[in-house]
Amino acid sequence: MLTLDKIYHASYVLKEAIRPTDMIKATNIDTDCELYLKTENLQITGAFKARGAYYKISQLSDEERAKGVIACSAGNHAQGVARAAQKYGIKALICMPDSAPISKVEATKSYGAEVVLVEGTYDDAHDKAVELQKETGATFIHPFDDELVIAGQGTIGLEILDQLPDVDAVIVPIGGGGLISGVAYAVKSLNPNIKVYGVQAAGAPSMYLSLAHRQIETLDSVNTFADGIAVKTPGDLTFELCSKYVDEIMTVTDDEVATAILTLIEKQKLIAEGAGAVSVAAAMFDKFPVKNKKVCCLVSGGNIDVTSLSRVIDRGLQKTGRLAEFTIALTDKPGELQRVAKIISRQGANVVAVSHDRADLNTDINSCYLRLSLETRNHEHIQRIKDELARQGYKIVG
Amino acid sequence: MLTLDKIYHASYVLKEAIRPTDMIKATNIDTDCELYLKTENLQITGAFKARGAYYKISQLSDEERAKGVIACSAGNHAQGVARAAQKYGIKALICMPDSAPISKVEATKSYGAEVVLVEGTYDDAHDKAVELQKETGATFIHPFDDELVIAGQGTIGLEILDQLPDVDAVIVPIGGGGLISGVAYAVKSLNPNIKVYGVQAAGAPSMYLSLAHRQIETLDSVNTFADGIAVKTPGDLTFELCSKYVDEIMTVTDDEVATAILTLIEKQKLIAEGAGAVSVAAAMFDKFPVKNKKVCCLVSGGNIDVTSLSRVIDRGLQKTGRLAEFTIALTDKPGELQRVAKIISRQGANVVAVSHDRADLNTDINSCYLRLSLETRNHEHIQRIKDELARQGYKIVG
Repeated sequence: MLTLDKIYHASYVLKEAIRPTDMIKATNIDTDCELYLKTENLQITGAFKARGAYYKISQLSDEERAKGVIACSAGNHAQGVARAAQKYGIKALICMPDSAPISKVEATKSYGAEVVLVEGTYDDAHDKAVELQKETGATFIHPFDDELVIAGQGTIGLEILDQLPDVDAVIVPIGGGGLISGVAYAVKSLNPNIKVYGVQAAGAPSMYLSLAHRQIETLDSVNTFADGIAVKTPGDLTFELCSKYVDEIMTVTDDEVATAILTLIEKQKLIAEGAGAVSVAAAMFDKFPVKNKKVCCLVSGGNIDVTSLSRVIDRGLQKTGRLAEFTIALTDKPGELQRVAKIISRQGANVVAVSHDRADLNTDINSCYLRLSLETRNHEHIQRIKDELARQGYKIVG
Repeated sequence: MLTLDKIYHASYVLKEAIRPTDMIKATNIDTDCELYLKTENLQITGAFKARGAYYKISQLSDEERAKGVIACSAGNHAQGVARAAQKYGIKALICMPDSAPISKVEATKSYGAEVVLVEGTYDDAHDKAVELQKETGATFIHPFDDELVIAGQGTIGLEILDQLPDVDAVIVPIGGGGLISGVAYAVKSLNPNIKVYGVQAAGAPSMYLSLAHRQIETLDSVNTFADGIAVKTPGDLTFELCSKYVDEIMTVTDDEVATAILTLIEKQKLIAEGAGAVSVAAAMFDKFPVKNKKVCCLVSGGNIDVTSLSRVIDRGLQKTGRLAEFTIALTDKPGELQRVAKIISRQGANVVAVSHDRADLNTDINSCYLRLSLETRNHEHIQRIKDELARQGYKIVG
């Protein structure tokens, strides 16, 4: 059974392995609450997962340690387990789907773990891990449905109360539910007046639906770029703890998450992964009744693949009207490009990229398309530019 | 005259306006020293400039405050002055070159300052500010060559010694020299054994050359994307302080800076701007004799424009062999694209983008070009892929 004692004990054990991450007041993020960020993206390994995995492994017997540990993960849990195993000098075998980004595979290997790349999805990797566990007798380290793992994550709750004793509400990302179970247990045990809210991706609302239906629900599929919380089925233990200690769960869309990631980059200079930014997205898009309250958003991790980071940035810029892309039809005669450039510059926008194409089979023989990427101020600004182009006789075709 | 007293006083005054930023041990960054990051990119306004500007403005007389302040900056100093003026309820006029990114202009306005966009370069904006200062009688807040501004920046030195008392060396970015003057003065006054190293961009080595020639040198032009430290002439006061208290200055290239920015994103989940990352670049590329030493790199700011962030990421990925772009010539017949894709996938690379072009006038009539962007592991991996493509009869054309 989970107890506050175990969380305090985890907190003591973790002193040797974990950094107490900073709590940063986010004065520049536009919300109707007083927003604080608990920056677990700045945790060692780039995510809170290092806590639960370390505490779990610290509690294994010598006999268990001799047989090593095994885990299945496409991301943060892999690195958490690998690092904890390395610290204790025990063997770690991590099954990862072969679709996992190269950077995450390399990061896991860098902690000395043996990585088994399994063809297919997370579920395939999980099956392989279960199979290998039976062969080797290694201890399977569950990513969330484990009392000791949950106790490890709960240490974040203690840190939050230490850093911001008068917090009114804590907003926490939910995948399998390990993080929020630990945090909610710690926070509510010490002060039941503090609200604990959970956030899931709209494309993976397994705990949201399970709580709504008061029974564990399994999703057929998940669809979100917040891969760290794309979990089909909540755990038994985490479902029970969430039912008891979490006040409310809401979902956020991928577009809202992209906007939150961009905001964290621009305003707070922090990299959050999709799963890590859902809490901030929930605060920014008013998902919970926290007006004028002191709110701590748990930014759970920062392991976003840089090759996809650019895309997320572009998406966030487009959503907030800071990047506009559209195509206009031009007559293919000298000076047209210059005329368009002048109109745009007069409207105070910067041209990021231009492509000029006369090869399209669907174009009139003496016309062409100009595809523009513009740095703009907001949606209104974009509309003003389009209006002005139209007024000057240019046709916007898409 | 700068004294330790003034820095301690600044430290006391700044308590109401500034957050003591975290010192983070960077265990995953590959250097030959024990690396710590003083995260002034997480400072309010996204840069250390908030300190000096605030302390300077706090020391103005009531009469001076009534006339307001004026400053010239394309970036961080603008925000620092604007915020400090807002806190004291006084008028701030900031001249910015009209080439400044929209986001920095908007951020400065968000602190209530009046922004005057001046056509041309930083120098033009500076001339305009001097002109307006004469008209209005407002106090001109110099970005670096001011004793009180330097005292404000020096508070970072006190924090470093508090957070890492046994530090062996501190590596600090240099533009005009205000930051390092304050930090070096504080650190050396308290412990002369601690080394203080300065870093400039190779494309803007004004203090580097000035110290080498033992006289203030003015550059004709500066060329670096680390715009925060692209300063043509050091200050009189900062030149004197650097001559006295800085052990050595080195330069880093833009490519090295891009690599450092990418590393900070991937390994530390922190956004640094070019000027903020030069210290880390210097540590990564072994510019100073700090092997096995305890080294604090000052990450001075994080205000990089997101529209250029993607480009920096790409540059860093390419430099480290994590992104490869090349073109191969194909015969334009069915199945060729698939064959190439198979070769690449067998070599363990991911295709990020493909463009297939048969419209080039220089191409044989029945051949075409395939432009590939691949996510790769390192330079060796890229070579292996190219070798395999060549072995299978494909010609790499660029």
